[in-house]
Amino acid sequence: MLLHDDRLLPAEPVTRGIARRLYAGVRDLPIISPHGHTDPRWFAEDKPFPDPATLFVKPDHYIFRMLYSQGIKLEQLGIARKDGGEIEGDPRQIWRLFASNWHLFRGTPTRLWFEHAAFSIFGITERLSAESADRIYDRIAEQLEQDAMRPRALFERFKIEAIATTEGALDPLKWHDMIRESGWGGKVVTAYRPDSVVDPEFEGFRDNLDQFGELTGEDVGSWTGYLEAHRKRRGYFIERGATSSDHGHATARTANLSPAECEKLFAKILKGKFSAEDADVFRGQMLTEMAKMSLDDGLVLQIHPGSYRNHNPHLFEQFGRDMGSDIPRGMDYVSALKPLLDAVGNERGLTVIAFTLDETSYSRELAPLAGHYPALKLGPGWWFLDAPEAMLRFRELTTETAGFYNTVGFNDDTRAYLSIPARHDVARRMDCHYLAKLVAEHRLDEDEAAEVAHDLAYRLAKEAYRL
Amino acid sequence: MLLHDDRLLPAEPVTRGIARRLYAGVRDLPIISPHGHTDPRWFAEDKPFPDPATLFVKPDHYIFRMLYSQGIKLEQLGIARKDGGEIEGDPRQIWRLFASNWHLFRGTPTRLWFEHAAFSIFGITERLSAESADRIYDRIAEQLEQDAMRPRALFERFKIEAIATTEGALDPLKWHDMIRESGWGGKVVTAYRPDSVVDPEFEGFRDNLDQFGELTGEDVGSWTGYLEAHRKRRGYFIERGATSSDHGHATARTANLSPAECEKLFAKILKGKFSAEDADVFRGQMLTEMAKMSLDDGLVLQIHPGSYRNHNPHLFEQFGRDMGSDIPRGMDYVSALKPLLDAVGNERGLTVIAFTLDETSYSRELAPLAGHYPALKLGPGWWFLDAPEAMLRFRELTTETAGFYNTVGFNDDTRAYLSIPARHDVARRMDCHYLAKLVAEHRLDEDEAAEVAHDLAYRLAKEAYRL
Amino acid sequence: MLLHDDRLLPAEPVTRGIARRLYAGVRDLPIISPHGHTDPRWFAEDKPFPDPATLFVKPDHYIFRMLYSQGIKLEQLGIARKDGGEIEGDPRQIWRLFASNWHLFRGTPTRLWFEHAAFSIFGITERLSAESADRIYDRIAEQLEQDAMRPRALFERFKIEAIATTEGALDPLKWHDMIRESGWGGKVVTAYRPDSVVDPEFEGFRDNLDQFGELTGEDVGSWTGYLEAHRKRRGYFIERGATSSDHGHATARTANLSPAECEKLFAKILKGKFSAEDADVFRGQMLTEMAKMSLDDGLVLQIHPGSYRNHNPHLFEQFGRDMGSDIPRGMDYVSALKPLLDAVGNERGLTVIAFTLDETSYSRELAPLAGHYPALKLGPGWWFLDAPEAMLRFRELTTETAGFYNTVGFNDDTRAYLSIPARHDVARRMDCHYLAKLVAEHRLDEDEAAEVAHDLAYRLAKEAYRL
Repeated sequence: MLLHDDRLLPAEPVTRGIARRLYAGVRDLPIISPHGHTDPRWFAEDKPFPDPATLFVKPDHYIFRMLYSQGIKLEQLGIARKDGGEIEGDPRQIWRLFASNWHLFRGTPTRLWFEHAAFSIFGITERLSAESADRIYDRIAEQLEQDAMRPRALFERFKIEAIATTEGALDPLKWHDMIRESGWGGKVVTAYRPDSVVDPEFEGFRDNLDQFGELTGEDVGSWTGYLEAHRKRRGYFIERGATSSDHGHATARTANLSPAECEKLFAKILKGKFSAEDADVFRGQMLTEMAKMSLDDGLVLQIHPGSYRNHNPHLFEQFGRDMGSDIPRGMDYVSALKPLLDAVGNERGLTVIAFTLDETSYSRELAPLAGHYPALKLGPGWWFLDAPEAMLRFRELTTETAGFYNTVGFNDDTRAYLSIPARHDVARRMDCHYLAKLVAEHRLDEDEAAEVAHDLAYRLAKEAYRL
Repeated sequence: MLLHDDRLLPAEPVTRGIARRLYAGVRDLPIISPHGHTDPRWFAEDKPFPDPATLFVKPDHYIFRMLYSQGIKLEQLGIARKDGGEIEGDPRQIWRLFASNWHLFRGTPTRLWFEHAAFSIFGITERLSAESADRIYDRIAEQLEQDAMRPRALFERFKIEAIATTEGALDPLKWHDMIRESGWGGKVVTAYRPDSVVDPEFEGFRDNLDQFGELTGEDVGSWTGYLEAHRKRRGYFIERGATSSDHGHATARTANLSPAECEKLFAKILKGKFSAEDADVFRGQMLTEMAKMSLDDGLVLQIHPGSYRNHNPHLFEQFGRDMGSDIPRGMDYVSALKPLLDAVGNERGLTVIAFTLDETSYSRELAPLAGHYPALKLGPGWWFLDAPEAMLRFRELTTETAGFYNTVGFNDDTRAYLSIPARHDVARRMDCHYLAKLVAEHRLDEDEAAEVAHDLAYRLAKEAYRL
Repeated sequence: MLLHDDRLLPAEPVTRGIARRLYAGVRDLPIISPHGHTDPRWFAEDKPFPDPATLFVKPDHYIFRMLYSQGIKLEQLGIARKDGGEIEGDPRQIWRLFASNWHLFRGTPTRLWFEHAAFSIFGITERLSAESADRIYDRIAEQLEQDAMRPRALFERFKIEAIATTEGALDPLKWHDMIRESGWGGKVVTAYRPDSVVDPEFEGFRDNLDQFGELTGEDVGSWTGYLEAHRKRRGYFIERGATSSDHGHATARTANLSPAECEKLFAKILKGKFSAEDADVFRGQMLTEMAKMSLDDGLVLQIHPGSYRNHNPHLFEQFGRDMGSDIPRGMDYVSALKPLLDAVGNERGLTVIAFTLDETSYSRELAPLAGHYPALKLGPGWWFLDAPEAMLRFRELTTETAGFYNTVGFNDDTRAYLSIPARHDVARRMDCHYLAKLVAEHRLDEDEAAEVAHDLAYRLAKEAYRL
């Protein structure tokens, strides 16, 4: 049997009993998915998903990272080369390669997510292996053709109450318009991700700016026009349901320059004669500008810092961005966030959500900051930290200083649509695991733990993201 | 029932059984409180404490930090503004606000400390809430008028064998004199905290120096006179029972300059034309000077580094210091402590106790350092790290390298008098929790664990601090 | 009874049952010891070990560090001073001092290792103490004279299938030759540790280089000749069984300069007019050069960075290197390893094993790097991190991102021969402890866990190190 009912709950019987009761209270709650990277086109077109390999293997950087680390080439996994070079074209071959390396995923969240989807969506009850690969492939493939497996049907089956996608500032949001116009009732909203027009080092930044000006009708050659363009564009996103912006900078640095300094820096950026330091300050300034705009338009500001993107230049040259070679770095949030917090940290109407890939900052910096500043909340474990043990550490390292109510529930943050129920289920189980320990050690009463479990599974995300 | 007898002990029955036995051996030991911030005036005057809000809410930065982070204004909690602006004046209203936000403290040590005090001192047996607020307020308020609730009576009820307060170098220590002269037998000693005359960036440093000169009759305009003033003042504190000095610098940096360099630096400091770097070196040099004086006069040197004080400038402007916006930072102890350790680290008669707010340094730096240098001991979890999970991590991260005997037992480090028994009780329970795990996993025999539990609860603090 | 059969296994009965079964499957597997510091002379000469103090106390920096930290002088432990000054000469006195301080080792791995050796090799069943010191001394001393206690007999008794020693590049490897020529079947191989001819700041670097030139017949005054000398010397080591090189630099920094830059830098180094920065770049460049040579000759590259050597200058002056005052520092692997990974990180035929003394890098940097780069594997917990709790954290912090198969099993990394079975046993128990938790929480099936336990205890080390 792939999925045990008690998976991820503590082994100790009394504690497990408590955890079971807590989990029973939250397992069937609707899903609030306030931040992620699913493709709005799926919901707009509602077409069937293709074959199992294209669904599970090729788009999942958790999967191909691990396979690559063990010597398997991305070409063997059917991942497109930028030069159009030859790659594996047969999804069944890709699937077999994946299946015969399934042991690599022991102890990883990929294992939990895949088996949850395979069992609960496709009814698979045997373990993936070289031997079972073809049977499982066929079983999934045949079901993918059914109407019940289309994006919207799954949306309802997954009990998604609301989901946010993430689009660049230049995105026309046509799929979101199409969803709205379709009359379908699923709540799919966008989020404003302006990195391509905020980061001077982004590929094509100057061209992006030109396009940004055209889209908004603002003079993006002036600092005030540029800010106005953001305000307008945020409004455009808000009309398509956006309740948040999102920012994926290399560091958590923020800045709060005077208007005159901003104009001068922006002019320098526009001329293209800026240093790496200038670019970093500019990105930092824009976080503060975005926070100030949030005071007016109510968008929640998300900061996802600390990833060294494309650490492997060979892979980047051959396959492009997001190919699994992003690596976390140590972050200093205490200095980095100070300019922004000085400007708006005491605002009660603002929500800034800080994420981290550096868990050493949980107890030392982020919990003390979120446990003090009214505007600052702490995002859940992200990316390399969205797995069971890491989730437990997140609670152990933050709760004693920041409590539960300076956190914002769970984000799946995924482009792997079928893993969404699995990811929320893992988060709910691990929160119940943690809470059950508190109850078993008489640090919290069970009625309170039940309320907290509900808040973490549903209410906090809904409220923090205003969904 | 608020307090379960087995709270904080491991849930697994065999391990809990061991933990219970270990805890039974230490629960009633006298309290050694070798470092903290209670007000000696309480013990000198022995007046009743005022109302519940003034006792529990207004002075406790753990409590108002959390409430502030969730949008409650400090004015609503009755905390005085520097400009004398309007604040809530009715303690019952403050109490109600606190009570109706009690859920925010779930999973925090504040919860444990408050409920321990409420139950064991005031006999409160119901959970705090908006609904129970008034009943609990009244019950505490009426008891506060009784003689049994005065500072000295509580001192005896708490079984405090010795407690250290902390006073600035310029403090006349009149309350300590009054305690001694009163004939009361409670052991209340002071500790020498010279930050205001050691840190060139301290508010009023120059005036403080002048006062320091007057108090000691030394020429504090010369380096040798300045050192002599410290020696004399330490002597004055030692006469009032001091066994330790304490230093709260922004970093753990130490220095060991030649006398000529010291004179030059001190002259620069006196002229007021010094850089931030100069100030930092000076503070670092003074740690080493203090350690050298300790070789003569026997004071234990405590270093509490790594807090970014007053991170929130708005709060600092409006309410002053210590308003909950101190945030920890990463520390490098290996370089920082080296000059001091080079000078005196091998001295067997000296005790330097290092504390940290950066738990990443436990296994990487502090345990290896304390597990090597005869003069260096490791202080217990401090501030954001004085909670159950953090205490467990402290033992897990330090014991394998430094053992138990390079640590110094527990410090409550609090100004919240009523929480002292609770804090020591939490520490005793968590040490027994950890020890019981070692016994249950056959890594330590139970008779040894019992001895260690006793040492951690009583003997190590008494010996390390010479109390 | 010193050793409980279930020691280190989880206390919870169901989990312990699983752990027992897993451990039963690996407890008697042969030992692969792919990296360590035993003395090949022992195996060459096969002479009896001397007295208990010389065997257990004097050479073990874990033991004398702890004793030193508590005020015991190294002279009292019979450790030789550089000035030939007086030291304790009676091994029984040293043993008594050790025994009467045995409580200091509670909760440390030293305790586990010593008791394992004392019981399983010498049949000691009572706890060490001042009272039992002489009895235990006598019992061990009398057995040390028996043939069964000689190095080769113990090798077989310990079921060592292969062991690697570590020798400097200038070592003639005569003991390895002697072992081979003796006809004894024990597999004892060397490893290439060229720090003394790679680190410009190593004592006697220039003389070492001259000797290196003589040994290899190459012109080490030229960059190409110097590299060729390494190639030849590696070949010499490979003929004596070496399958790995090892590099103990202060940081993990690597470099990848052009050949022209290398020549220029090397010339500067040879002239002796180099900065600390030059030396650091040179060491970093040599790591990359070694990795490139590994592409040809197949040696596994081990990087052991991050120790601040000889932190205590007084001890260094009086007693020399390796006297217990090496202290870990924080490391940034993401930048440091990038030049090397850019050069060879995607090579499937290469194995680079990174170790760390900074466990904050496990989840943030090392697991993400090892979980991506085909050439990079993650070494086990090292030095201060080779203890039970630290081993558990290693798995908890790395498995969710890197899985089990980007790690390389266990290294004992010891010069304490008698502790080798104990160290491997602790590692096997802790891996089973961790795996049992995964099984009990239904995150892994027991048949898979059994396979992983076997891989971690035996196969991964054998394969990674090509032994």
